[in-house]
Amino acid sequence: MRIENAVMGRKGILQKIFLGILVVHLLVIAVAAGYNKGLKIWPMPVSVSHGRGTLYLRNDLELRIDGRMYSDASGIFKDGFFRFLEILKGDHVFQTNISSFNSSLIIKGIHVVIVSPSDELQHGVDESYKLSVPMLGDPSYAYIEAKTVYGALHALEAPWIIFDEPRFSYRGLLIDTSRHFLPVPVIKKVIDSMTFAKLNVLHWHIVDEESFPLEIPSYPKLWNGAYSSSERYSMAQAAEIVRYAQRRGIHVLAEIDAPGHAKSWGIGYPSLWPSINCTQPLDVSNDFTFKVIDGILSDISKIFKYRFVHLGGDEVNTSCWTSTPHVSNWLKEQGLNGDEAYRYFVLKAQEIALSYGYKIVNWEETFVNFGSKLSRETVIHHWLRGGVVQKAVAAGFQCIVSNQESWYLDNVGTTWKTFYANEPLFNIRKPQQKALVMGGEVCMWGERVDGSDIEQTIWPRAAAAAERLWTPYDKVAKDTTEVTERLAHFRCLLNQRGVAAAPLTGWGRAAPMEPGSCYKQ
Amino acid sequence: MRIENAVMGRKGILQKIFLGILVVHLLVIAVAAGYNKGLKIWPMPVSVSHGRGTLYLRNDLELRIDGRMYSDASGIFKDGFFRFLEILKGDHVFQTNISSFNSSLIIKGIHVVIVSPSDELQHGVDESYKLSVPMLGDPSYAYIEAKTVYGALHALEAPWIIFDEPRFSYRGLLIDTSRHFLPVPVIKKVIDSMTFAKLNVLHWHIVDEESFPLEIPSYPKLWNGAYSSSERYSMAQAAEIVRYAQRRGIHVLAEIDAPGHAKSWGIGYPSLWPSINCTQPLDVSNDFTFKVIDGILSDISKIFKYRFVHLGGDEVNTSCWTSTPHVSNWLKEQGLNGDEAYRYFVLKAQEIALSYGYKIVNWEETFVNFGSKLSRETVIHHWLRGGVVQKAVAAGFQCIVSNQESWYLDNVGTTWKTFYANEPLFNIRKPQQKALVMGGEVCMWGERVDGSDIEQTIWPRAAAAAERLWTPYDKVAKDTTEVTERLAHFRCLLNQRGVAAAPLTGWGRAAPMEPGSCYKQ
Repeated sequence: MRIENAVMGRKGILQKIFLGILVVHLLVIAVAAGYNKGLKIWPMPVSVSHGRGTLYLRNDLELRIDGRMYSDASGIFKDGFFRFLEILKGDHVFQTNISSFNSSLIIKGIHVVIVSPSDELQHGVDESYKLSVPMLGDPSYAYIEAKTVYGALHALEAPWIIFDEPRFSYRGLLIDTSRHFLPVPVIKKVIDSMTFAKLNVLHWHIVDEESFPLEIPSYPKLWNGAYSSSERYSMAQAAEIVRYAQRRGIHVLAEIDAPGHAKSWGIGYPSLWPSINCTQPLDVSNDFTFKVIDGILSDISKIFKYRFVHLGGDEVNTSCWTSTPHVSNWLKEQGLNGDEAYRYFVLKAQEIALSYGYKIVNWEETFVNFGSKLSRETVIHHWLRGGVVQKAVAAGFQCIVSNQESWYLDNVGTTWKTFYANEPLFNIRKPQQKALVMGGEVCMWGERVDGSDIEQTIWPRAAAAAERLWTPYDKVAKDTTEVTERLAHFRCLLNQRGVAAAPLTGWGRAAPMEPGSCYKQ
Repeated sequence: MRIENAVMGRKGILQKIFLGILVVHLLVIAVAAGYNKGLKIWPMPVSVSHGRGTLYLRNDLELRIDGRMYSDASGIFKDGFFRFLEILKGDHVFQTNISSFNSSLIIKGIHVVIVSPSDELQHGVDESYKLSVPMLGDPSYAYIEAKTVYGALHALEAPWIIFDEPRFSYRGLLIDTSRHFLPVPVIKKVIDSMTFAKLNVLHWHIVDEESFPLEIPSYPKLWNGAYSSSERYSMAQAAEIVRYAQRRGIHVLAEIDAPGHAKSWGIGYPSLWPSINCTQPLDVSNDFTFKVIDGILSDISKIFKYRFVHLGGDEVNTSCWTSTPHVSNWLKEQGLNGDEAYRYFVLKAQEIALSYGYKIVNWEETFVNFGSKLSRETVIHHWLRGGVVQKAVAAGFQCIVSNQESWYLDNVGTTWKTFYANEPLFNIRKPQQKALVMGGEVCMWGERVDGSDIEQTIWPRAAAAAERLWTPYDKVAKDTTEVTERLAHFRCLLNQRGVAAAPLTGWGRAAPMEPGSCYKQ
C-alpha cells in the first residue's frame, strides 16, 4: 500500500467490498428509517444512503491525508488505516487483471480531510465524520471528512455512511482486574473489539477487595496485594494500555474504589485496615490512609490523562469503623456517626483528586447518601436503584448509566434484547436534564470471568448497548426483533476479526447448541 | 533487536526472565525425575538441569545463526525469534542502567546452529534440540543446537532445557470447520497456541454433512454447500493457513470424509446423493462421485503438502444405497452387498489419493470392517472401540490414537486428568508394534463450539494430552496430582500470551467460579 501521491500502474490485486454507493456529485443525506432496514451496519448511523452497485478496492489502496490542517505526525490515522486494510484483506480477495475492469468502478484510494490539527483525545472530542464515494471519477477516491482524527477513525469502520456522529459522548465498558487478573494482551484485545462497536471509554476497575495488581511507586508494597508476582501491571504496562487505547480513540477511566472494596490495600500496609480482623472499609481515622490515596492519585495522574478519575465509594458498610475501638473513638472525637464518616472519607478523597486536576466520578450511593455535599461537578454513576438518574439530573449532576438489571454483563441471564432496550434517558423529559446524562456503560465485573471467557461474555451483548449509546433515538429500533439479523451479522463480523463473540441465542456467553451458520445462531 | 554481529553499547533496557541456569563449561545432563518436580515447564522435557541464579536478557537481544549449514533464507527461524521476543516483552520489563549490573549475568544474544540446510517440513522431521547457557562468558550467549529449524523453534519455547525431543512424531489437534465455520484468524490463533504445547499436526476436518466451506476450483458448486458466502475458505485462504502452520513447524492434515458425513456435497451437485430424500452416503453407483473426489484431491494436493491425507470413511450407514432403486440395482449388477460396496468405495477413494502421491489415513471402521483389503500403508485412526489399536498394530498397520472416552475435547465432561492419563501404548508390548503407533490426537469436534469458545474448550485439556505425546514415558506422572500446579502454571502462561485457556477446576471450558489467582483455579 502506498501513501500520498504515488501513481499506480494498471496491474495489481483487486479487493472487492460491497461499497455499493452510487452517489452523484451532490451528497444525498437523511433517508427515512425504513429504508435502512436491510443495511448490515452496527451501530446504525445518523444518516446513510447508498446505491446498488458494487465497487472495488485496489489491494494497494492509497491514503492521502490533506495536510493543510491535520498532519498525522503521530501516525494515529495511518495506523488505523493499516489496521483497516489488514481486516479487509481477510475477505474476498481475488486476483485479476485490472485492465479487464471498468476503471470507474475501482476505488484507488482514500482522501482524508481532518479539520483540527490537534490529536488530543479528551472528553467531548468531536467524533463526527462524513464519508462519501462519488460515482463519477476515473480513478475514484473515497472521501472522509472529520473534525478530528478520532472521527476519521470511526469512518474507517463504516463502508457506506455519509454522515454520522454519536448520540452520547460517553460510551463505556468496565473491566475488573481485581477479581481476576487480565493479562495485557487480553486487555488490548478488548480495546480492539470496542473500536468495532464505537465504544469509547474503558472504565478500568483496577483494584478491589480481592487483589491489588497495580504498581504504585509511591507505596510499593500496595501490589503485595496482587494474587501473585505474575498477576501485576507495572506502571509501564499501565501506560502502554493507555497509549494503545488512545491511539484507537478510547479514553481510559481509572477507578480507585474507596473506602469500601479495598481490603487488598492492607496486604502490604496492614495499618490501612481498621483491624486485622475487620479490614473494610479503609481506616478513616488514620492520616496514612489519605497519604496513600494521595500517593496513588499522584502516580496514576502521570499516566491516566483522561479528564476523569473514578473514586468508587460504593457499598460502604461502616461496622468495622463503629466496632473497632480506635476508630470509634476517633468518630466520637470528630462528632461523626458512621454515615457521616463515610461522607467525610469520600469528600476528602475527592479533594485529593481535584488537587491533581481530575474531575470525579463516584458510584450512586455517594449521591443518594449525601448528594448535597458532593463536589458539584461530580459525575454520578448509576448502577443500583431505579429513579437515581432522574433525581441526580434534577439536582444538576451529570450522570453515567449502568443499571445492573440491564447493563451488567456478569449477569449472564440478561439477554442482548434487554441490553438493547435499556434507554438511558428513560423518564427524563426536560432538555437541560437530558443533556446532563453523559452516556452509559456496560459492566464486565470479574468474579466469574477471566482471560478464558471474557470476550464472549462481553460480546455481542455489549454491542446491543453500543447502538443504544451511538445511534439517534429515532433510529434505535423499538422492537428488538427488527435488529436480530443485523446484530447477528455484526456478531459474525466480530468473529471474522478474531473477537470471540458468543451466539445471540440463549443466555450470555452460551455455547452454540448445534451445528449451523454463524448468521443464524 | 539486531541480528548477526551488531555491537552493543552498555545502555539499554534489561529484561529479566528466570533462566536460572548456572552451568559450568561441561554440560550437565540427565537428572533424576524427582529433581524436576519444582520445574514449571510444560510439556516436561527429556532432560534438564539448572542452577538457582537469575540471568537477564537485554531488550535488544541479538540473534546469530551459524550460516555454514542452515541459512534461514526463508526467515522461518528469524520470525520465530521475533515472536519469542514479543512474548518476552509482555513480562517483567524494567528500565535500568546496564552499567550497574554484573555484566556476566546478562545474556546478550542467542547463537543458533542448525545442522540441516533444508527447511522442508515433513512427517518424521527431526524435532530434537539442545539449549545451553554457560555461566562463564562476558558477554554471555545462550546456545541452541538442532538438527532442523523445527527443532530450533521448539528450543525457543524452553528457557531451561538442555536436551529434548518428542516421544511421538504425530501430536495432533483436530478442528472441524463444517459444523461451525471458523474464521481464518481463529484458526491462526489455534495454530499459535499449538506451538506453545509442541503439538505439531493440525488435522483439519474441513467438510462434513452440515456444510462444505472449501473452494474446489475443479467443482465450483461444491461450496454452495457452505452455510453462507461469508462462511467459506478460498483456495488462497487455505494455502495461507498451510503456510502459517508450516512456518511454525505444524503440518496440516486435510480430511475429506467420504462416503458418509457428506450430505453437504450434494447442495451444489444433487446427483451425488442417492436421492433427494436419501442423501448419505454419497452415491457409490455414480461415476461422477469419483470424478468429484478426484477433482477435490487434485485441487487440495496443490496446497496440502503434508505426506498424508485423511479420507475419513467413518460411520457409514448403507441403507440409502440398498433402499434407493438405481443404487441397489447397481449393487446387484456388481454382486455387492451394502458392506462390500462400502469397502469398494473406500478402496476406490484410496486409489485416487495414492495417485496424487498421498499416504492415507482412514478412521478405524475401515480397518474393523475390511482391514485385510486396505492399502497396507493406510494409517488407522482409532476413535471408537477398545482394542482396535492393539489389533491394528498386530496386523502391521500404523495407528493414530484418539479414543473418544479420553481425547474428545467436545466432551466437556472429560477432565484434564483423563486427558493426561490416556496412554497411547496401553496394552501394546512388542517393540515393533509400539513403533507402529505414530502418536495421537485430541479432537475438537465442532457441533457445539464456534469462534466464541473454541480456545477454552481446547485448552488446557489439550495440553494434558500434549505432555502425554511429547514427554518420555518414564517422566510422565503416574499420579495426576503431581502435575496440577505445573499445568496450572502453563495454563496461566497461555492466558498471558492471549490464549483463552480455561481454568483447570471443573469440567472443560468452565468459567471460573469465584475470584482468585489464575494459578489456583
